[in-house]
Amino acid sequence: MAMADSNSVSHSGNALNLESVRDSLIRQEDTIVFSLIERARYPVNSRLYNQTLGLVPGFSRSLVHFIVKETEAIQAKAGRYENPEENPFFPNGLPPSVVPTHKYPQVLHPAAASININEHIWDMYFNQLLPLFVAEGDDGNYASTAASDLNCLQALSRRIHYGKYVAEVKFREAPQDYEPLIRAKDRDALMNLLTFKNVEEMVKKRVAKKATVFGQEVTLGNNSSGNYKIDPLIVSHLYAEWVMPLTKLVEVEYLLRRLD
Amino acid sequence: MAMADSNSVSHSGNALNLESVRDSLIRQEDTIVFSLIERARYPVNSRLYNQTLGLVPGFSRSLVHFIVKETEAIQAKAGRYENPEENPFFPNGLPPSVVPTHKYPQVLHPAAASININEHIWDMYFNQLLPLFVAEGDDGNYASTAASDLNCLQALSRRIHYGKYVAEVKFREAPQDYEPLIRAKDRDALMNLLTFKNVEEMVKKRVAKKATVFGQEVTLGNNSSGNYKIDPLIVSHLYAEWVMPLTKLVEVEYLLRRLD
Repeated sequence: MAMADSNSVSHSGNALNLESVRDSLIRQEDTIVFSLIERARYPVNSRLYNQTLGLVPGFSRSLVHFIVKETEAIQAKAGRYENPEENPFFPNGLPPSVVPTHKYPQVLHPAAASININEHIWDMYFNQLLPLFVAEGDDGNYASTAASDLNCLQALSRRIHYGKYVAEVKFREAPQDYEPLIRAKDRDALMNLLTFKNVEEMVKKRVAKKATVFGQEVTLGNNSSGNYKIDPLIVSHLYAEWVMPLTKLVEVEYLLRRLD
Repeated sequence: MAMADSNSVSHSGNALNLESVRDSLIRQEDTIVFSLIERARYPVNSRLYNQTLGLVPGFSRSLVHFIVKETEAIQAKAGRYENPEENPFFPNGLPPSVVPTHKYPQVLHPAAASININEHIWDMYFNQLLPLFVAEGDDGNYASTAASDLNCLQALSRRIHYGKYVAEVKFREAPQDYEPLIRAKDRDALMNLLTFKNVEEMVKKRVAKKATVFGQEVTLGNNSSGNYKIDPLIVSHLYAEWVMPLTKLVEVEYLLRRLD
């Protein structure tokens, strides 16, 4: 048997610290890049996203909405949302878990459970990100495409909501810096305190490099074709424009509730 | 918009030929390696596979069985199994597709639809492959683990059943070589005719290299840690012991029905 990745707080079994949070964020980059590369196998398949087609009898939304909602219901039964790292896209009416509850480490303030920006992530993914990296066309593979979309959405959602853990760690390291700003509800000052431009530049470079490495055509020779399955610049754009800002939004929302 | 991968017959829009089949097989290697790396994020989580726990009320099989069966039902509604490249693990009682049928190129002999070795693939994956590359332990993430298992199973199933296309192309290129063996139902001779040791060695090396490249820890420096998320030898073992032999089994089964 191999060693498991220490890719989340729940796996590591360790107390929350900056090192474990950082390791998880870095490992999650790989998952995000893999999921985007896999979505790029299919063209846009826009019929999947069209609400007016009425494909599913008795369901007024799009086919992808139906597939994600139904798949989340199955995963809820298997306990997915018992893990505080996971947030559903359609939280209303989810069935209860049938599995014995795992003892996830309780490291977050209870208010964390009320923070879910998946509506925002859904909109960003389908309306802004997806058109940047998929080809036009329709190949009929709606189910596979929607499954790939769900993998992307879940990977992005987990990464962005991981801001709750980032904020908790940062708060514990310097409560004296955060408490006055939290009491003053000073969002801008909190955002400034959470922003490290040099770290963000490094992350943008690293995710672009990951897209280059993971998206290359690997052959037994040394010749790289220079074709990438996803444009590395789009991945750094995704992080710069959406992943990092939305993570910080989650961090601020969490901190504002941290003293409740 | 980017160019879509020509990763399947249904996407390429081209007539079936050795080049398009080969490209698809190579692209599918990446998907398989990604899916294994992602499964390795979680420990074995054996409660998922235990039939005797009776976790799902009214369902006598394991939790992973429940999740795969239910997820396949949703994907069937979205038309997944209208594509002749896709084969369900639980074909009985699947609901019909609600989407307008896509015109997939009809390149296979109709008997292809009767060939489904997913029971074999299921057994191989859970009982032989999985214990080789996941860590011991239980982190409670059963839903995410099962979703990763399903990604692995579907990627392996698609790759192995792609043997139908491989066999069709080879048959068309040299019907005079195959017809006598098919009429004689000579499985061994067909298997010999389909076996190219040097090609198989090359594939084993290439998939191991892909595991090395895609499973490395990518950093901004040049220093590779030498830690891989999945052992490259296990990926070449997977291909040598199971993927390539099972693909040839599909090829032989298809050829035996090719003149019906």
